[in-house]
Amino acid sequence: MNFFDRLADRIAATDSVVSVGLDPDPKRIPEHLTGHDLPRWAFNRRIIDATHEHAAAFKPNAAFYEDPDGWKALRETVAYARGKDVPVLLDAKRADIGNTARQYAGLLDDEVGVDAITVNPYLGRDSLEPFLSRADKGVFVLCRTSNPGGEDLQDLELASGEPLYERVAALVDLWNGNDNVGLVVGATTPEELQEVRAVVPDIPFLVPGVGAQGGDAEAAVEHGLADGVGLVNSSRGIIFAGEDQGEGFADASGQAAKRLKKRLNRYR
Amino acid sequence: MNFFDRLADRIAATDSVVSVGLDPDPKRIPEHLTGHDLPRWAFNRRIIDATHEHAAAFKPNAAFYEDPDGWKALRETVAYARGKDVPVLLDAKRADIGNTARQYAGLLDDEVGVDAITVNPYLGRDSLEPFLSRADKGVFVLCRTSNPGGEDLQDLELASGEPLYERVAALVDLWNGNDNVGLVVGATTPEELQEVRAVVPDIPFLVPGVGAQGGDAEAAVEHGLADGVGLVNSSRGIIFAGEDQGEGFADASGQAAKRLKKRLNRYR
Repeated sequence: MNFFDRLADRIAATDSVVSVGLDPDPKRIPEHLTGHDLPRWAFNRRIIDATHEHAAAFKPNAAFYEDPDGWKALRETVAYARGKDVPVLLDAKRADIGNTARQYAGLLDDEVGVDAITVNPYLGRDSLEPFLSRADKGVFVLCRTSNPGGEDLQDLELASGEPLYERVAALVDLWNGNDNVGLVVGATTPEELQEVRAVVPDIPFLVPGVGAQGGDAEAAVEHGLADGVGLVNSSRGIIFAGEDQGEGFADASGQAAKRLKKRLNRYR
Repeated sequence: MNFFDRLADRIAATDSVVSVGLDPDPKRIPEHLTGHDLPRWAFNRRIIDATHEHAAAFKPNAAFYEDPDGWKALRETVAYARGKDVPVLLDAKRADIGNTARQYAGLLDDEVGVDAITVNPYLGRDSLEPFLSRADKGVFVLCRTSNPGGEDLQDLELASGEPLYERVAALVDLWNGNDNVGLVVGATTPEELQEVRAVVPDIPFLVPGVGAQGGDAEAAVEHGLADGVGLVNSSRGIIFAGEDQGEGFADASGQAAKRLKKRLNRYR
């Protein structure tokens, strides 16, 4: 089954386009969980229990799992989230060439088994082919990111007149033969969301930058969804909402996810 | 001590600019090693023993270590290579924003402890800052890659007239306040190497694409080195040179590394 069809079902079932980012910064995991074998997994499991009703997807960021115990925690997390029927999008921003790209595509299967992944377009189409060719998996390509340095390359004006990030959107549209491609477009400026949407009317966006990074919820929903499908992510704003509440931390996360869902649903 | 000063010392000590890529594809590890606890580490250790005299650096590619045992194998590999005084460059092509970028920078320290890393420029300067700010570590930024899709974004003509990859080279030069930045420039077309060298006379290149991918050894040396410092990588051409030789596989790798060293030294 196509990833975006599954995502559409999940959005309907939860009445939510919220993506909950699972970035379990070891320095911020509640102290009562640090004695566990895999503290990141103990943390994520409680967050998933508390937020899954409001989650259209979970989005673990690979940076927080890059060590032996981290990969174990990630595998457990992915299996648990999928067991609750929530699609998992690995925020890996990977890209490499040839046999290395194929190796990274193992993240979709045996190594971790996620439903979708974020990738970086700088190395071009063939670097993404092992992901694009998987009609059952979603591939979110970085387009315009919300960090200050996003403009360094992405806003460069091409000889043809448009900024690089718009060309990336147009290229990705050409690479979308399997209807499995989305774009990562930040919510820091509503105009950019609108411009990218004009280039690719039918491609779902993953919009980060709502929550801890600020960002405009209305624009994220208005321009981020394609035929009602897309994701608006919050990571720290949800998972660390109860950081000062000891063992009650997960309840606070559940409430934060619910609040974001309602805030976004005002514009759907 | 600055990374490129250390690399210069190593190049002088071995009379070599060869980077040996450690991409231990599990499907190609010799059968007699597959019973080990960590077959990739068993394989790498033998390759390091056989090639280190000819190696200016070892370059493990992160894609081949992305699972719990893989990260253990990577840690052992890095520690062992450094114990033989060979700098280790992790080919990770990472980039992310804010707190996530800082998390990835852990690869330079506790998590793995490498001497240098490859990164992707698409997210701009702040995404690379946790690496750039480390004067003791090397940061190789992707500029022009040797794969067919390299042209999709990297060759796009900017309004100012130059291709995107030349602008990336110029930007990276501005970001090089700690003299710790290199560029990844493929050897598939000598003209591109020459053009990038003209933009940044003083920045060392990592030139992949010599060996299994073909590529032009003469151009790699002539344009890739800055004041004699730079790296020309071969991965599969060295580590799988003895693939059909059973327990003698590592000797064949040592000979392949020596041959590449001599071939490159004709042009130094």
